[in-house]
Amino acid sequence: MKRKLHLSRRVESVLASPIRKFLPLALAAEQRGIEVLRVNVGDSDIPVPKVFWRALRSFRDRNIGYAPSPGIPQHTRAWVKYYATLGVKLRPQDIIPTVGCAEAMLFALLGVADPGDEVLVFEPVYPSYKGFAAMLGIRLVPVTLSVENNFALPPAATIAKKITRKTRAIVVINPNNPTGAVLTKQETARIIQLAKKYHLFIIADETYREIVFQGKPTSFLQSKSAREHVIALDSMSKKFSCPGVRIGAIVSRNAEVMRNVLRVAMVRLSAPTLEQWATIPLLEHAATHARSIAREYQRRRQVVYSALKKMPGVTVRQPAGALYIIAALPIANTEDFVKFLLTEFHYRGKTALVTPAADFYITPGLGRNQIRIAYVLNAARLRQVMEVLERGLQAYRQKYGTA
Amino acid sequence: MKRKLHLSRRVESVLASPIRKFLPLALAAEQRGIEVLRVNVGDSDIPVPKVFWRALRSFRDRNIGYAPSPGIPQHTRAWVKYYATLGVKLRPQDIIPTVGCAEAMLFALLGVADPGDEVLVFEPVYPSYKGFAAMLGIRLVPVTLSVENNFALPPAATIAKKITRKTRAIVVINPNNPTGAVLTKQETARIIQLAKKYHLFIIADETYREIVFQGKPTSFLQSKSAREHVIALDSMSKKFSCPGVRIGAIVSRNAEVMRNVLRVAMVRLSAPTLEQWATIPLLEHAATHARSIAREYQRRRQVVYSALKKMPGVTVRQPAGALYIIAALPIANTEDFVKFLLTEFHYRGKTALVTPAADFYITPGLGRNQIRIAYVLNAARLRQVMEVLERGLQAYRQKYGTA
Repeated sequence: MKRKLHLSRRVESVLASPIRKFLPLALAAEQRGIEVLRVNVGDSDIPVPKVFWRALRSFRDRNIGYAPSPGIPQHTRAWVKYYATLGVKLRPQDIIPTVGCAEAMLFALLGVADPGDEVLVFEPVYPSYKGFAAMLGIRLVPVTLSVENNFALPPAATIAKKITRKTRAIVVINPNNPTGAVLTKQETARIIQLAKKYHLFIIADETYREIVFQGKPTSFLQSKSAREHVIALDSMSKKFSCPGVRIGAIVSRNAEVMRNVLRVAMVRLSAPTLEQWATIPLLEHAATHARSIAREYQRRRQVVYSALKKMPGVTVRQPAGALYIIAALPIANTEDFVKFLLTEFHYRGKTALVTPAADFYITPGLGRNQIRIAYVLNAARLRQVMEVLERGLQAYRQKYGTA
Repeated sequence: MKRKLHLSRRVESVLASPIRKFLPLALAAEQRGIEVLRVNVGDSDIPVPKVFWRALRSFRDRNIGYAPSPGIPQHTRAWVKYYATLGVKLRPQDIIPTVGCAEAMLFALLGVADPGDEVLVFEPVYPSYKGFAAMLGIRLVPVTLSVENNFALPPAATIAKKITRKTRAIVVINPNNPTGAVLTKQETARIIQLAKKYHLFIIADETYREIVFQGKPTSFLQSKSAREHVIALDSMSKKFSCPGVRIGAIVSRNAEVMRNVLRVAMVRLSAPTLEQWATIPLLEHAATHARSIAREYQRRRQVVYSALKKMPGVTVRQPAGALYIIAALPIANTEDFVKFLLTEFHYRGKTALVTPAADFYITPGLGRNQIRIAYVLNAARLRQVMEVLERGLQAYRQKYGTA
């Protein structure tokens, strides 16, 4: 007989989000009258295109019933039309809208991997993959990328060494959170080739698809030969700058995968009804809306990248997409530096909240000298962030020394 | 080396929702020009109180950023105030808003049970518990209740026989979906006593708390002695008749439980932003809004219950809450009957979609002669449903014989 209430062990291995865990220190700094410039979360100051509000208003006073588990048909058809503009022909049953990309991740991992199975990821990786894998008993196997090499993928043979009989899928986030890297054609081909050779699914997280600073938006779904392998994860959050609407999608032309996903989707009933309606016009003119948002991020990237490049001892490469940049700082532990910025430092009444990068890695000890910056503020405010960072770094190194 | 793409086995054991799986047949009947009266899903024709729309409009044109993972503070405080009206004193950190009660279920199960652990449920049970347990590798152990006994709980000793070293929690849905039963004071005390004696959590799904037809709304959170044991699951969906907003909550005064839940909540980022704002005024006058909704369900229950009671061979008891009733029909297999209603039958151009009850049970073979009706249509339309059912039952028995 047990003697006390037992919590689950599996949640013990779910780390507190590195992106969100410093929030209490930021709030305390604000209590002390310091302005905290927040560039930790991919939560942008860019407003959602106005058509969203018009569509939302037109729903007014109707019943707010459950949406069907496979999505409101008009909403799902809007996704189908959107994908057609990328040259991807889908049937409505190839798409299920989800509660943000986060739920699409959960569904994809649940759909392809049992407890003890392995999934390949490139580290640094978006931390929710670590969280969901821990909940589901799935082992994430990391292939390590480096900032010096601008997070380019290693040769196929290096990746293949990590594949075992238990490997079920490769996760690729493209454009990448947290690195801002965008896969080259060669890298995309390498992933497809590996997936086919080793019978793996490609879980392609394409949340940032439209936020690319050269070339066109792409998708793994465009590959004809890997049709059965690709499970794409999508989101309204970044391309239309509305993360709080919590609408994403899981997309696959593998009917068995979607049959599995639909079963899981029925258990949680449905994604929010109002937002499924209100996002239809966004999908109908996706390229236009997303292009203007991407251009704004391109301007911001320039501010952040050029400032970081000039800072002594900082290693950084130019990101090609998304809204993040990883920088290696000349200090031993960026967790301490982030705490320092929030508790001991300000420059002209301002400080900044950036994300220490260690928790984006799976291999212990990696990334401890790195930070991620989300360029979610306008250019003027980003200049202030960069000034805080530069002065803060000087002050920190004077006080605590270098790496 | 494996030869093909591997899907997960765990999802194989997630059944298609019994509530939703007949939808294709209903759509086909509608294509043939038959009106299908849908009483399968708890998706009501009662509109959300108008204050929701006012609050939603006032948010217009603001940025739709992520909500904080532990909830928008004003929203969480509105829950705290609402619980105070039930005599339950909470701190904001005792509550995390979720994507409907479904996500609260997932969080509660994740928080207390590891793969191979057991959780006690009373069958018939709401099917999403079966789905989430299958995904998470948790074994649901059923204690069987009967329609003849109006789903009353057995004595403590009978329940205790099902408790093993691996049991982590007892799930109680009160008022109950799918039975409509409401726990008596003695039954509530029995659950609390068992939980304390055997060191179990009580996962108290109180989605239908306010929909009771006599006495006041109650909560397991009102128990002082079981403070550490109770994890309450809540929802806006039924008490304010707005299931499509997807806002629920998980509530516990056990700080360790909430620490676990917050970790999991961070992985999925947040519940929808607009709905967290727009539901604040609903919570602020919850009793008033919910009371008028509960009264309407009480009228409807009378229509459904009195009609079923008169049907020859039908066993039914009067439900005391929620918006469901279970009836045992004088036939062998209600799945066949539901299919018959949708494919071979209509009465004056109308038929009905009800839910066969077998999938609400865990023990194989139980409930095959039962159906669940959700009284989500107005009284006039429910009378039509009852007429369809009575005539349909006659026609079915003439054609296929009795049980």
